[in-house]
Amino acid sequence: MENPAIFRVVYQITAENGFDAEQIAQNICIEQSVEMPLDAVPHHVRSSVARLESISQTDTERWKAEIAFPSLLTGEDPTQLLNVIFGNSSLLPGIKVIGVDDSILTALLPGPAFGIDGIRELLDVHDRPLSCTALKPVGLSPEELAERAYHFASGGIDIIKDDHGLTSQESADFTSRLTECIAAVRNGEQKSGKRTLYFPNITCSPSKVLEQYWEAVDLGADGVLIAPQLTGLEILTEIARDASIPIMAHPSFSGSMVIHDTRGISAPLYYGKLWRAFGADCIIYPNARGRFTFTLELCKAINRQCRASISGIRASFPTPGGGINRDSVSDWVKEYDTDTIFLIGGSLYQHPGGLETATSEFQQRLIEGGIS
Amino acid sequence: MENPAIFRVVYQITAENGFDAEQIAQNICIEQSVEMPLDAVPHHVRSSVARLESISQTDTERWKAEIAFPSLLTGEDPTQLLNVIFGNSSLLPGIKVIGVDDSILTALLPGPAFGIDGIRELLDVHDRPLSCTALKPVGLSPEELAERAYHFASGGIDIIKDDHGLTSQESADFTSRLTECIAAVRNGEQKSGKRTLYFPNITCSPSKVLEQYWEAVDLGADGVLIAPQLTGLEILTEIARDASIPIMAHPSFSGSMVIHDTRGISAPLYYGKLWRAFGADCIIYPNARGRFTFTLELCKAINRQCRASISGIRASFPTPGGGINRDSVSDWVKEYDTDTIFLIGGSLYQHPGGLETATSEFQQRLIEGGIS
Repeated sequence: MENPAIFRVVYQITAENGFDAEQIAQNICIEQSVEMPLDAVPHHVRSSVARLESISQTDTERWKAEIAFPSLLTGEDPTQLLNVIFGNSSLLPGIKVIGVDDSILTALLPGPAFGIDGIRELLDVHDRPLSCTALKPVGLSPEELAERAYHFASGGIDIIKDDHGLTSQESADFTSRLTECIAAVRNGEQKSGKRTLYFPNITCSPSKVLEQYWEAVDLGADGVLIAPQLTGLEILTEIARDASIPIMAHPSFSGSMVIHDTRGISAPLYYGKLWRAFGADCIIYPNARGRFTFTLELCKAINRQCRASISGIRASFPTPGGGINRDSVSDWVKEYDTDTIFLIGGSLYQHPGGLETATSEFQQRLIEGGIS
Repeated sequence: MENPAIFRVVYQITAENGFDAEQIAQNICIEQSVEMPLDAVPHHVRSSVARLESISQTDTERWKAEIAFPSLLTGEDPTQLLNVIFGNSSLLPGIKVIGVDDSILTALLPGPAFGIDGIRELLDVHDRPLSCTALKPVGLSPEELAERAYHFASGGIDIIKDDHGLTSQESADFTSRLTECIAAVRNGEQKSGKRTLYFPNITCSPSKVLEQYWEAVDLGADGVLIAPQLTGLEILTEIARDASIPIMAHPSFSGSMVIHDTRGISAPLYYGKLWRAFGADCIIYPNARGRFTFTLELCKAINRQCRASISGIRASFPTPGGGINRDSVSDWVKEYDTDTIFLIGGSLYQHPGGLETATSEFQQRLIEGGIS
């Protein structure tokens, strides 16, 4: 789709200590486009300068500013889009990105290659939430990890993702881990009589992620796990444009972007809209009521953004992790609804009856939660 | 160099509202290693768990905790090192990374391929600070950008870097921009009788940065500009291990990591130690007394980290940008000392006498500042 002539970014501006919110907004227009004094910008390229479209006060020290950026600033370049939205402004206080026009995302980004519907197709599960667990801890051998994967699959889990700390350590190198775990999951499926998808972690040096993706595909993995804040977001895009298996995105290293009230990028926008538009099929975020501090309201806003209708961009599966256990999962299904992947780790490993029993119970409660 | 058995990371913990700082530190040990309840970690892999070495109170609500991580967690993987230092912990409040042992950096990372001494060699300038300016704005044609580059070089500037917003827009595609600007700089050198280095921006999709690096080398660029928060930090490392020309790192998109008192990574550690160890030869940061909010003390701490002695890792050139103009540069030289690159933009473009005159004056004052 062709680039729109302009696209809008919405900033929340917190103007403390007598700072002038409108001046801050005008500064963003300069800082994020020509980055030089206006009187030094040649007349024939004044069209490069972003323009403040509106600003309104929303609270005592808080304003909402809509800024129109000419699309000539980004060209066709998704990484440059991030630079335009929040490059140098990330270094200034009181500026938080809270909205980006759909039009520029549709024009530049592919969205998920599978999305909610595609992942449901892979599992042939269409009417209930999905279950997911994490394979860990680091330090186990490929065979030991595979044994755990076997029990999860035997117990009927929908998705097993690697712990995001499993890379290619001496205890379990990448190829051996994938080979053993994929075989174990296929065996476990024989016992459970249902599909289980295995998503190994392929987070590594940015220039090597694509290579590891295709190795994972060749070895028979059903999806991959990537921490985009470590690899650069456009890695998702490159995979999504030509994907064989879906991507689950992990929020490692990204907390500083989203956990501050007056700075950064709002979590629903960053995870639910941008990571999705860049190409993540499933989006893990730190769930409420656990060890993280996202509120229930914020988590629901992420869910809504993951699933919202955007022209030409598939919906992503919100994947809350943390704060969910075997007992609480039914309640969470009621809170978050059917199009959700529930990620549960510790509480399965702690079950006295072992992983397979723990997984069957979790799966059963998830299904009951979904139909109650 | 071989991995140390363990390496230490120092965290500042802000424990508000009655939270227990030691408990937070213990949680980091789990969250950043096995990420599961300790009672569920198999005995033979307990050595994977990080260990709290010390914790001491430094202020009313503030503690300093030293945590020892087993190196088996990172293997040989620089991206995984970031994940271990600040993966899920980035999503928890009150945790800020303030120190990392040199030993693990020396073991895993190359540091700059050129560093301060190498860049001085390229310019044959050994006893004074260096000058740098930014080529802009976006929207100009390759020929118009090249004309500006010519005047900067004629005026005797040491380094011209692209504005970090110049990518491959329709107004000036990557190859044309580099071809024209490199030729113009070589012409300008004829007039000035001294070397000028041109560092084009190669920030783009993470999997394409290496390709653009080698295209820049082939076209005759003298260095490159990269925004590592957009490309992933290990891109620096891959270039530095096999570099032909140096890297200048730009802080675009990285502000959320460093501008908060109680969260993120301290700016001196992130820019001055980690970006350096990952391979950045010059490190741009937002200077004090300008439009950004870093204090003078913080900027000096970044300078110290860039230049500090670390076994096997060259020193990087601190490159303060913002808040510097033709008149103030002599004062800044006194504050920051000789091993500094002073980045100046707007004030050259605004000079009524044109770019070449502005640049000569700037260069003259920089040199005088350095010898006064």
